[in-house]
Amino acid sequence: MSLVFGQVEPAVFQAYAFWAAVLGLKMLLMSVLTGLQRGSKKVFSNPEDVKPGGKIAYDDPDVERVRRAHRNDMENILPYFIIGFLYMFTSPTVTVAVNLYRLVAVVRITHTVFHALVPVAKFRGLSWATGFFTTAFMAVRIVLHFL
Amino acid sequence: MSLVFGQVEPAVFQAYAFWAAVLGLKMLLMSVLTGLQRGSKKVFSNPEDVKPGGKIAYDDPDVERVRRAHRNDMENILPYFIIGFLYMFTSPTVTVAVNLYRLVAVVRITHTVFHALVPVAKFRGLSWATGFFTTAFMAVRIVLHFL
Amino acid sequence: MSLVFGQVEPAVFQAYAFWAAVLGLKMLLMSVLTGLQRGSKKVFSNPEDVKPGGKIAYDDPDVERVRRAHRNDMENILPYFIIGFLYMFTSPTVTVAVNLYRLVAVVRITHTVFHALVPVAKFRGLSWATGFFTTAFMAVRIVLHFL
Repeated sequence: MSLVFGQVEPAVFQAYAFWAAVLGLKMLLMSVLTGLQRGSKKVFSNPEDVKPGGKIAYDDPDVERVRRAHRNDMENILPYFIIGFLYMFTSPTVTVAVNLYRLVAVVRITHTVFHALVPVAKFRGLSWATGFFTTAFMAVRIVLHFL
Repeated sequence: MSLVFGQVEPAVFQAYAFWAAVLGLKMLLMSVLTGLQRGSKKVFSNPEDVKPGGKIAYDDPDVERVRRAHRNDMENILPYFIIGFLYMFTSPTVTVAVNLYRLVAVVRITHTVFHALVPVAKFRGLSWATGFFTTAFMAVRIVLHFL
Repeated sequence: MSLVFGQVEPAVFQAYAFWAAVLGLKMLLMSVLTGLQRGSKKVFSNPEDVKPGGKIAYDDPDVERVRRAHRNDMENILPYFIIGFLYMFTSPTVTVAVNLYRLVAVVRITHTVFHALVPVAKFRGLSWATGFFTTAFMAVRIVLHFL
C-alpha cells in the first residue's frame, strides 16, 4: 500500500478535495440556473411539468444556452475529477499541483460566467482552453508516470 | 499518508462503494431502456442503425423522455460520485454517512421511476431535490473541512 | 485503514491509472473533433461564435454525429471511472483486473472510431457492448464484495 496511497501529499489532497467540491457545487448550480430560466420563460421539457401559460419547447435560446454550459461542464469537469485525483499519485510538486487545481476551478467558473451569464466568446474560449490544456497536461503526466 | 487515506472508516467506505456501484448499474440500465424504446418505436439516431420500417428522429417523446432521465443522471449522479467519495475524508459520523449514501441511491432510483417509467412530476421533483440537497450538503462539508 | 486502502495491489492501481488517463485524453479529444467539424461545416451553437459565412444550427449530421459519440462517452466512460476505481478494492486477480482495464480502454477507442470516424454500426455496437458488460461485471463484483 505504501507504494500507492502512501505517496499522496496531504497538502495536495486537501487542495484537490477543496476545489473539486467547489466545482461540484458550481455544477449543481447549473440545474438551478436551468430551472430559473425555465420558470421565467415558461418553457418546459416534460408534458407533466407545464405550468398554466407555459409550453413544451426545446429551442428556447436562454434555456438552451444554460443547458449548453451545463453540458460543457459535464464534458470537461467530470473527466477532470478523475484526472485531477490520479494526478495526486504522480508525485507532483506541491505548489504546482495546488495552483493547477486552483486554476482549473477558477477558469471553469469564468467559463460559466462568460457562457451563460455574460456571453463573451473570447473570454469563454480562453477559460475553456485553459481548463482543457491543464486537464490534458495532468492526464499526460499520469500516462507517463504509470507507463 | 495517515493524514489522508488513513482517516476513512471501513464501514463508511463499504457503504459508499456498495451504493455507488448500485447507482452505476442503474445508470447503465438507462442505455438499455433507451435501446428498448428505440427498438419498439423504430426510431434511431444514426443512419447506419435504421432497421427496415424505422426512421431517423430526434423528437420521439418516449425515446427523448428516457434520454432526459439519463442526462439528469449524468448531471446529478456523476458529480455525486466524486463528492460522495471525498465526503468520506471529512470524518463524518458513520451512521450519518451510511444513511446519506443510502438516501441518495434510493432517491436517484425513484427519480428514474417517476421520470421515465411512471411519470409523476411531484414525486420526480421530490426525488431530484432530495438527491440534490444531500449532494450539496456533502460538498459544503468538504469545502468547510478542507478550507 | 489497512482494511480499506491497504488492500489495493500497486500493479492494479497502475493499470487503472494509466488506462483511465488514456481514456480521459480520448474524451478530451472529442471536444477537438467537434470544434474541427464546426469549423469545417461553419455550423455553430452560440450566436456570439458565428464566423462570417457561418450559421447557427443544431442538426448538422457531421457535427451531431461527433456530439452523439461524445455523449456516449459520458454515459459509459464517466460511470466506468468510478466503477473501475472501486473494483480495485474487491481484491481482483491482478491479471484479470489489468486486462479488463485494457479491454475497456481499447473498446471505448474503437467505439469512437466506428461511430465518429468510420461509421460501422456492427463494430460500434460490439465495442459498446464489450465496454458496457465489462463495466457491469465490475459493478456487480463491487456490489457482491461490499454487500
